[in-house]
Amino acid sequence: MKLLVLNGPNLNLLGTREPDVYGNETLDDVEAALRSSFPDVEFSFRQDNGEGALIDLLHTAHERGLDGVVFNPGGYTHTSVALRDAVSAIDPPVVEVHLSNVHAREAFRHKSYIAPVCAGQIAGLGTTGYHLAVRYFLDA
Amino acid sequence: MKLLVLNGPNLNLLGTREPDVYGNETLDDVEAALRSSFPDVEFSFRQDNGEGALIDLLHTAHERGLDGVVFNPGGYTHTSVALRDAVSAIDPPVVEVHLSNVHAREAFRHKSYIAPVCAGQIAGLGTTGYHLAVRYFLDA
Amino acid sequence: MKLLVLNGPNLNLLGTREPDVYGNETLDDVEAALRSSFPDVEFSFRQDNGEGALIDLLHTAHERGLDGVVFNPGGYTHTSVALRDAVSAIDPPVVEVHLSNVHAREAFRHKSYIAPVCAGQIAGLGTTGYHLAVRYFLDA
Amino acid sequence: MKLLVLNGPNLNLLGTREPDVYGNETLDDVEAALRSSFPDVEFSFRQDNGEGALIDLLHTAHERGLDGVVFNPGGYTHTSVALRDAVSAIDPPVVEVHLSNVHAREAFRHKSYIAPVCAGQIAGLGTTGYHLAVRYFLDA
Amino acid sequence: MKLLVLNGPNLNLLGTREPDVYGNETLDDVEAALRSSFPDVEFSFRQDNGEGALIDLLHTAHERGLDGVVFNPGGYTHTSVALRDAVSAIDPPVVEVHLSNVHAREAFRHKSYIAPVCAGQIAGLGTTGYHLAVRYFLDA
Amino acid sequence: MKLLVLNGPNLNLLGTREPDVYGNETLDDVEAALRSSFPDVEFSFRQDNGEGALIDLLHTAHERGLDGVVFNPGGYTHTSVALRDAVSAIDPPVVEVHLSNVHAREAFRHKSYIAPVCAGQIAGLGTTGYHLAVRYFLDA
Amino acid sequence: MKLLVLNGPNLNLLGTREPDVYGNETLDDVEAALRSSFPDVEFSFRQDNGEGALIDLLHTAHERGLDGVVFNPGGYTHTSVALRDAVSAIDPPVVEVHLSNVHAREAFRHKSYIAPVCAGQIAGLGTTGYHLAVRYFLDA
Amino acid sequence: MKLLVLNGPNLNLLGTREPDVYGNETLDDVEAALRSSFPDVEFSFRQDNGEGALIDLLHTAHERGLDGVVFNPGGYTHTSVALRDAVSAIDPPVVEVHLSNVHAREAFRHKSYIAPVCAGQIAGLGTTGYHLAVRYFLDA
Amino acid sequence: MKLLVLNGPNLNLLGTREPDVYGNETLDDVEAALRSSFPDVEFSFRQDNGEGALIDLLHTAHERGLDGVVFNPGGYTHTSVALRDAVSAIDPPVVEVHLSNVHAREAFRHKSYIAPVCAGQIAGLGTTGYHLAVRYFLDA
Amino acid sequence: MKLLVLNGPNLNLLGTREPDVYGNETLDDVEAALRSSFPDVEFSFRQDNGEGALIDLLHTAHERGLDGVVFNPGGYTHTSVALRDAVSAIDPPVVEVHLSNVHAREAFRHKSYIAPVCAGQIAGLGTTGYHLAVRYFLDA
Amino acid sequence: MKLLVLNGPNLNLLGTREPDVYGNETLDDVEAALRSSFPDVEFSFRQDNGEGALIDLLHTAHERGLDGVVFNPGGYTHTSVALRDAVSAIDPPVVEVHLSNVHAREAFRHKSYIAPVCAGQIAGLGTTGYHLAVRYFLDA
Amino acid sequence: MKLLVLNGPNLNLLGTREPDVYGNETLDDVEAALRSSFPDVEFSFRQDNGEGALIDLLHTAHERGLDGVVFNPGGYTHTSVALRDAVSAIDPPVVEVHLSNVHAREAFRHKSYIAPVCAGQIAGLGTTGYHLAVRYFLDA
Repeated sequence: MKLLVLNGPNLNLLGTREPDVYGNETLDDVEAALRSSFPDVEFSFRQDNGEGALIDLLHTAHERGLDGVVFNPGGYTHTSVALRDAVSAIDPPVVEVHLSNVHAREAFRHKSYIAPVCAGQIAGLGTTGYHLAVRYFLDA
Repeated sequence: MKLLVLNGPNLNLLGTREPDVYGNETLDDVEAALRSSFPDVEFSFRQDNGEGALIDLLHTAHERGLDGVVFNPGGYTHTSVALRDAVSAIDPPVVEVHLSNVHAREAFRHKSYIAPVCAGQIAGLGTTGYHLAVRYFLDA
Repeated sequence: MKLLVLNGPNLNLLGTREPDVYGNETLDDVEAALRSSFPDVEFSFRQDNGEGALIDLLHTAHERGLDGVVFNPGGYTHTSVALRDAVSAIDPPVVEVHLSNVHAREAFRHKSYIAPVCAGQIAGLGTTGYHLAVRYFLDA
Repeated sequence: MKLLVLNGPNLNLLGTREPDVYGNETLDDVEAALRSSFPDVEFSFRQDNGEGALIDLLHTAHERGLDGVVFNPGGYTHTSVALRDAVSAIDPPVVEVHLSNVHAREAFRHKSYIAPVCAGQIAGLGTTGYHLAVRYFLDA
Repeated sequence: MKLLVLNGPNLNLLGTREPDVYGNETLDDVEAALRSSFPDVEFSFRQDNGEGALIDLLHTAHERGLDGVVFNPGGYTHTSVALRDAVSAIDPPVVEVHLSNVHAREAFRHKSYIAPVCAGQIAGLGTTGYHLAVRYFLDA
Repeated sequence: MKLLVLNGPNLNLLGTREPDVYGNETLDDVEAALRSSFPDVEFSFRQDNGEGALIDLLHTAHERGLDGVVFNPGGYTHTSVALRDAVSAIDPPVVEVHLSNVHAREAFRHKSYIAPVCAGQIAGLGTTGYHLAVRYFLDA
Repeated sequence: MKLLVLNGPNLNLLGTREPDVYGNETLDDVEAALRSSFPDVEFSFRQDNGEGALIDLLHTAHERGLDGVVFNPGGYTHTSVALRDAVSAIDPPVVEVHLSNVHAREAFRHKSYIAPVCAGQIAGLGTTGYHLAVRYFLDA
Repeated sequence: MKLLVLNGPNLNLLGTREPDVYGNETLDDVEAALRSSFPDVEFSFRQDNGEGALIDLLHTAHERGLDGVVFNPGGYTHTSVALRDAVSAIDPPVVEVHLSNVHAREAFRHKSYIAPVCAGQIAGLGTTGYHLAVRYFLDA
Repeated sequence: MKLLVLNGPNLNLLGTREPDVYGNETLDDVEAALRSSFPDVEFSFRQDNGEGALIDLLHTAHERGLDGVVFNPGGYTHTSVALRDAVSAIDPPVVEVHLSNVHAREAFRHKSYIAPVCAGQIAGLGTTGYHLAVRYFLDA
Repeated sequence: MKLLVLNGPNLNLLGTREPDVYGNETLDDVEAALRSSFPDVEFSFRQDNGEGALIDLLHTAHERGLDGVVFNPGGYTHTSVALRDAVSAIDPPVVEVHLSNVHAREAFRHKSYIAPVCAGQIAGLGTTGYHLAVRYFLDA
Repeated sequence: MKLLVLNGPNLNLLGTREPDVYGNETLDDVEAALRSSFPDVEFSFRQDNGEGALIDLLHTAHERGLDGVVFNPGGYTHTSVALRDAVSAIDPPVVEVHLSNVHAREAFRHKSYIAPVCAGQIAGLGTTGYHLAVRYFLDA
Repeated sequence: MKLLVLNGPNLNLLGTREPDVYGNETLDDVEAALRSSFPDVEFSFRQDNGEGALIDLLHTAHERGLDGVVFNPGGYTHTSVALRDAVSAIDPPVVEVHLSNVHAREAFRHKSYIAPVCAGQIAGLGTTGYHLAVRYFLDA
């Protein structure tokens, strides 16, 4: 099984910004933990702050032969129709993951343009959410 | 670890209504699969179609010594302030689970009164969602 | 032909509250008149003030072998996604009936969560509405 | 009893457009069926695609000595204050009829400017709706 | 001075419908009173229930050499962009008149599509409003 | 006949600010013209920039024995519930007058809190509007 | 004087949940204090988490011969048309009481479906609110 | 205990305007009744129609050594951020009182800018509301 | 190829009203230019100010054997559900054309009831838009 | 250069209320600091809690020969059309200043009626904002 | 004539994604067809998934000496103020083109931030839309 | 003191586009003027049209040891949650600057996603705004 774990804007700062909210785990820690937990999965990990770059990365789904994408679109979740269209355009299913409980934050974070074209959404469960999304692909 | 798996209105019909949407698994099947997957968890399973009855069940959290609740509030998700208050009033964390991707359905299903006072929400991942929620409690 | 005539909250008071608005006919009178007008229909009549209890009653559609439901959801019309889901989940068609012209009352009574999943809606024609709904099932 | 059965825009195409939605019955068929079912009612049947012409026809209520109007305002239902005012201005009661379940269609079809000044509304019950409306006038 | 007094839908019923609201004066009475009060004005009086016909009448402004239009658009006030465009398209200024105080009635009557392209609006002053509008043209 | 002509905020600048919009007539000019046109009316003229002061002035309606009030509430038109209540609280009818066509300006000027409790509203007809309002009181 | 003190969902937890917000007084303490303060009032005290059950309890107003109801509808305040209809349907006046200042909390708590059909509402004054409501019935 | 009873716009007319709605009691009667009922409270009573003057009066809270304010802001309730800020700026708690049931009136009266920064709100209980607010301060 | 070029309200004034906005070409000029540019297309050209008349004209699509309709609905674009239904009811595809850029004008011109049931929309390209629409039918 | 520094409601309490939010500087301190920093500017400083009084003060712009106004309208920012009109009516440019970051506070503080007719707005920079506004007038 | 044909996000997938919706033509096919149909036009063709890159490309309008831009902004149509500003900032006119009928899709696709600053918009006419836009530049 | 002056989309065109609105100063001129006015500040100046690139630049705040950021986010102001999150994630305070008075332009420019997480906002004061923002950092 080949999975892309794709992280959007500001997630490169994970573990360093607002540690009381997001904890001390960095994206590298997340990667290491996922590789350790799921040794049989062929992972690629990418992060980018640009909307266009994230679209480019989603478009590689076919050439990479991906079976699924674990996608945390960060702030683009609530504003990007272009990313929604990119998710719609590719074949492998996508699971949207949010570290924080977006439903408990500002009203503009309650709406996701992307979730409606994903398989589903996991929100508020911290970095465990990435693990659960991977497990979903294994179980589905 | 003691967990309550609580299902709301119409979920007693799971596996029998709209099988193309919800699959053929019944709630009993879900219970059996969870018990099998997590033999060390002390589960209680409850389903009720009544808002008041669901509140009563949440209120038992303390006397039962629960460590967490996996809660699928069904249609009450979008309309019940009373259930939200019940979730707020109890100590153990609650994870909201939806079988279908509520974000991809009618606009009135995009808003949850309950998610903001839960630890988080898992939506669209079918009955696998219950398993992921349990795993969250084990990992958190 | 087997029909369930199901009445929701406060309709137990029919004929006794606000008689200038709702007339002097009680639910018992309605039942008697329907049985008299449609002697060949096998009726069951139920009223309940609880949302959960109404869902339970709709769920009996299959075991009762109902051919249709005449449903006056009262105040739940405008607030209950759970009842909508129950109507969607059962096979026999449902006709929503309102005694008063809900479209001529407060704005919040103009929206029905339930009508979109019914065969149709009859509103404002008093207790005659129940008769017309039954006739619809006979003619359809 | 004298009744006007008044049909608005596009209903002249009934039975010929989208037969899977509206069936094969034409307005002439509806007229014949109503005359046959209610031989004692003195019917007039009119259809017009123009808002002004429909207002003119409603204004004839007094000179014709009508006891009621069965009115399917078609698309004007959702946009015409002028027709609403015409219904308010005449004495005989009006029952609004829709062939399709307007509450299950686009959001702009959920609101009727006309229903609030009618006796009531019947929606979604096909051409049977016309029969039920006539019966209401006979029973009321 | 040449003025057109143009009345829209349902105003042909003036003086006969809801006399407690609109009084007993008919449109003919209004015409007679205006001719009597303003003997030097060359009036034309027209009423029509059709939106298209009212547009046609406004379009005659140039060939008639009108100096102004006193326009009561009735229910089209709140729904007609086409009439607004017709008022914009002609040269003579238009004063919108309403017999009743539209600002004190249903919310949908508070908005006028037509008033923004008129010289102004007079509302709620009964048939006196027509006299005031004529006087405005004489004074302006 | 005793009338109060009451002007609200910024109208003391009339004739001096934005003369291309409001003309060169000052409030004193308006007063002189009204006194000249209606020599038999006993006028009082007041202007104040304060909401409370305008309420105080409306409250004098009874002791002054007013038969009517011509009221241009200026910017308070769109924001003052307190002035609305003052108009409701006094007996003599009030006609709201606006020099400019408020319906053709910013959206927040389309709504009047005060017009619904007035006899009516005259807007967009410049200082002629004051004359028309006085004439209304004479004719009504 | 016979009064029903009716408490809705989650109020059975009063004094035990979020004591810093709601204090340490339980519903039993409230009952004792009210009985002590108003020895001449014949009280009945009821609490239920179910919407239908609360409707049933309101319906007993007549058989119990109640002179008034002190009603804290909890979370149903903001979502229940059915309870509103129940309050409308009974004769004795109802005073809505909220322990916390609902107007200072989430926007969805600012609207009450029930207050418009009550005599009035007391909010934010803690358990003192119940005492004030009783006193209102004594003084009114 | 020192309390300020502060009344806003139009309340100087209490007992004289719309007596069927507000009764025959004047503000002086209210003052006399409160002094009589609570002889140990050191009251000051003020009424003003001006928003600025009411702010000035609230600002005297400190120099007067007030323990609380009973405040009926009248029409400013729904429109004044400045009064809200004044209430926030002073130390003694404020209870908002409305004679009529604002929740049962026009939609714009349902929102209070001031209540969220008060201790609470009492609405619809007539002049008894002032007594209850005083009692709250005595009991709190 | 048979095409109907159908123009709605006020377009009879094309070339004469607001020439700086709409240019000097009349509808006759447009017809001549289209006939000249597309000599092989069998055109019919119709204009009407009435909503009903436009519906009637659309209904002739079948008897005329039309292959397409170029439709400029003018002001009805934004208000007419009835015209939308007429477009839906006929077989030949319809292209909506607007001379001006409706998306750059008042907000109420941004929404088209008709475009969603057309093949597409061309806006803002002046009378060239009619030519482009014809060319679309030739190319499609 | 002549500047008016005008402060609206509650700013007389500056330095005394909520010092953790607004600091310990009083308006007198602000005045002293501005006079000290800009010895060549001829300042006038005014504060008033009344909307009408603030309008009066703005109206003095011409007679005072002001070159600019530094205006903190406090709570009236969000509610006063009358103040907006006063700013529009005077010649010297106005800069709106807010001590706190209004964009980070309650939603109703995000909208300013006054900013659109000012030269610009400075928000959130504390009393430094007054200095920056003065400097703008010197540099512009 | 020099034209830039600029395509936004996901259009690089044209002809490969959802071929039943968008057909089998790739962007290369579109380019070839346009060059073939308009041999005298000097085209440049660019596609990018990034909002910033598209802005950069629009900014080259001057140095390239463009006479017009055919722009399909894809999903950025509905969300990008920055692209709107870029279109406003350049001199050559821009025609917005959409392959699908955006007015017939999700509500968020009905609004274009960019169309109001374009010459016009062509939507729903497939790749023919590009041809029509080019022809517009030739004819305009 | 180290400051980053960061400019967003289209600001590279400053001084060349719409000079009547934005003046003739280029970004280079702004840089030169700031360096000249504040010789002791260590400035870095960056401009980018890409949302992702701007986020990257904000993220350099720590490694650069910035004391503050003067940020003109251009069109992203109104649409970018991702930039808001980037501003939140870094330590140095940010002042949002707009050359034009965004509050006086289209409604969608009134809302800033970014201002709520900045120290404050300066709008409408032209390039002077950059100078004032720098001065704020020096004074704060």
